[in-house]
Amino acid sequence: MTVTASANALRIGVAGLGTVGCGVLRLMARHGDVLAQRTGRPIVVTGICARDRRKDRGLDLHRFQWFDDPVELARSDAIDVFVELIGGENGPARDAVEAALEAGKHVVTANKALLAHHGAALAARAEEKGVALNFEAAVAGGIPIVKVMRESLAGNDITRVYGILNGTSNYILSRMQQEGRPFAEVLADAQARGYAEADPAFDIGGFDAAHKLSILTSLAFGTQVSFDTVYVEGIERITPADIEAADELGYRIKLLGVALKTDSGIEQRVHPAMVAKHTALAQVDGVTNCVAIDADQAGSMMLIGRGAGAEPTASSVVSDLADIARGNRVAPFLIPARNLKPYTRAQMRAHEGGYYIRLSVYDRPGAFAAIASRMAEQGISLESIVQRRKGGARDAVHGDGQGAPTPVVMITHRTMEDSMRKALEAIEKDGHVDAPPQMIRIERL
Amino acid sequence: MTVTASANALRIGVAGLGTVGCGVLRLMARHGDVLAQRTGRPIVVTGICARDRRKDRGLDLHRFQWFDDPVELARSDAIDVFVELIGGENGPARDAVEAALEAGKHVVTANKALLAHHGAALAARAEEKGVALNFEAAVAGGIPIVKVMRESLAGNDITRVYGILNGTSNYILSRMQQEGRPFAEVLADAQARGYAEADPAFDIGGFDAAHKLSILTSLAFGTQVSFDTVYVEGIERITPADIEAADELGYRIKLLGVALKTDSGIEQRVHPAMVAKHTALAQVDGVTNCVAIDADQAGSMMLIGRGAGAEPTASSVVSDLADIARGNRVAPFLIPARNLKPYTRAQMRAHEGGYYIRLSVYDRPGAFAAIASRMAEQGISLESIVQRRKGGARDAVHGDGQGAPTPVVMITHRTMEDSMRKALEAIEKDGHVDAPPQMIRIERL
Repeated sequence: MTVTASANALRIGVAGLGTVGCGVLRLMARHGDVLAQRTGRPIVVTGICARDRRKDRGLDLHRFQWFDDPVELARSDAIDVFVELIGGENGPARDAVEAALEAGKHVVTANKALLAHHGAALAARAEEKGVALNFEAAVAGGIPIVKVMRESLAGNDITRVYGILNGTSNYILSRMQQEGRPFAEVLADAQARGYAEADPAFDIGGFDAAHKLSILTSLAFGTQVSFDTVYVEGIERITPADIEAADELGYRIKLLGVALKTDSGIEQRVHPAMVAKHTALAQVDGVTNCVAIDADQAGSMMLIGRGAGAEPTASSVVSDLADIARGNRVAPFLIPARNLKPYTRAQMRAHEGGYYIRLSVYDRPGAFAAIASRMAEQGISLESIVQRRKGGARDAVHGDGQGAPTPVVMITHRTMEDSMRKALEAIEKDGHVDAPPQMIRIERL
Repeated sequence: MTVTASANALRIGVAGLGTVGCGVLRLMARHGDVLAQRTGRPIVVTGICARDRRKDRGLDLHRFQWFDDPVELARSDAIDVFVELIGGENGPARDAVEAALEAGKHVVTANKALLAHHGAALAARAEEKGVALNFEAAVAGGIPIVKVMRESLAGNDITRVYGILNGTSNYILSRMQQEGRPFAEVLADAQARGYAEADPAFDIGGFDAAHKLSILTSLAFGTQVSFDTVYVEGIERITPADIEAADELGYRIKLLGVALKTDSGIEQRVHPAMVAKHTALAQVDGVTNCVAIDADQAGSMMLIGRGAGAEPTASSVVSDLADIARGNRVAPFLIPARNLKPYTRAQMRAHEGGYYIRLSVYDRPGAFAAIASRMAEQGISLESIVQRRKGGARDAVHGDGQGAPTPVVMITHRTMEDSMRKALEAIEKDGHVDAPPQMIRIERL
């Protein structure tokens, strides 16, 4: 049996019945009536598609027309909107989305990889066909950041968009912070609990955040999506010593995605960052995400919420469907895709900001003087210095010992990354440190 | 000279040229071009209206057609959208909005008092006429909470909406917190700096927050706006002693507006509340606002941003205009106004939660035992008790002294407000306290 939709119903095809796909079906089953009242017309799932028809998903799927091929569902006369929840930048997801647009169907997708790689082209196709391409669920799960940037900030010039865009990394950093345990140990535990994938590189390496950031960048600055140029650093090298020193200096370490307009272009970067402890962003712990925007009219704004999971992501998918049901349209990337400007990358070496530096310094005469002079050569001035003895006691800096290395932590004033890296390279070459320096950028909120 | 708008331009009339009105004109002058690109058509201010034509507003107003009477502007053939920035629940603002709707003009307003009192009726009229009634700027300034609730959460059942809705109160509480100074002193200073009105009662008494809350309640629960039933308590009675004790116990004191669905109806309340110190909401200081939502699908979500001021409020007005320019429509209160349910008020005495209690207890044998037994009679159990000596030192409770009153601070476990009030009435009647008890509700975030 298949669902018969009333004349003015919006008919939905859902491709991909994983966590989010099933979340969408459950949400529609639970709130379909109120949704119809709110949008003025029924929204009805008519067709579905997934790889394995026989898998038990805890849902009665007999009411829906089954498709084995997502492209076939995408083109089907039984649907008005194609919801792509398959995932992956190419393959069936891309084929099906392209087929849907070609057939004049609206598309809703949660697929950040697809958008990060083919966003502008797909948007252009959607615009030519006069259909919607909505992707609220692709960035930060249940947080309505796409709508806010496309609609609420229509009258604003945005200078920076940034945030905590990956729940797994934030969960790991939060637990390292709370428990003082090393990265590898917390990661293993997170994997055991299902908070991290068996292959965690995509999340902890910063690539997932980079996908999302590249979409936000395009929305913020009217530029073509440029995922390949995002500077990406993961959280693998963060140690309990960094987290402890950060705390002492008034900071928390967060994996941030930041897109910033500068004089030389746009910085797109994902990296661990020091953020002031007594800010709302610093309190965003666990799998929670947040996105902040600096806009010339609205000022600084932050949205905090659940960045993943069946229900929050389904909530965003359904909000996109509600817009389509109401006939409300906005260009996928706010301005017509053909008007998106080429992305001009600002070099990371031109980045300016404060830095946290942790060195493991051989405790011998002259070592610290040599380090300080390397900093001075590059015109870097220091805001604070902490030297720690092995016992963990804090001491004034006075290199009177010999031999075994001592951790030295420094916070610099605003400087250029090029200078910072040159100073660190020189320090390493001088042979006063027994391990590569740790460098963490400070992000002013 | 008047502006000639191109054929497909959206023509705007702005009534009220105070802070926000001038902010809108400046924003349109600065970003008009990009706004046209983003919405697909020019948005052009054609008519303006204010009380005093000769006042210097630092703007060149000669390009616009001047109207002395807002009702005349509202009905003018020169406009498609009437932007009401006059203020006030009745009088010219209401007259002009009604006239605009009657004439089939879209309406954008920042007027929370108007909506709190006449929201449902105006929404019904707008729906009959098939025009928009948008009011993003009426709640929390630049924070796009109306859009998020009307559109992004369309597929959600909301159980609670709450937040810091008044910047003046939050500014005063933040400074009391940071400086340890008493309310009256900080208020006077805030007035001198222009952060508080000469007559501050509307802000610090909680009424401004109540206006905004009543609108959020309607959006969250699909109920008729019911401002008169909001329980309102201001911040006048908060003392440095409360703020200090809160800090010690792990809390910050914030003036919250809370709308909560309960078994017996909806609680709408504005009052000072204890919130856990290590939460994002607790870090929202100064004039910043925030709104949080508990939704069944999206989960817990929070928006933080600037709650007032020319630019943030203008940003919200212009986002409403952009929606109208694009032809995007949503019912003012999410569902058709005729379907809004009557508001069923939950009695404050039925409120359940934890409480902070500060008593000034005569330091004599038996006083504390009497207090404890009054609590026990009402079935109230205590989570923590702190007794402070005059010197400020913290001591175990052991009523061994005599005479002069000692502050005693208690945190209760979850209890019913009726029980709490009865216990406090009995304690006061017993004569062991030399001042009325301080009672502050604890809000779980």
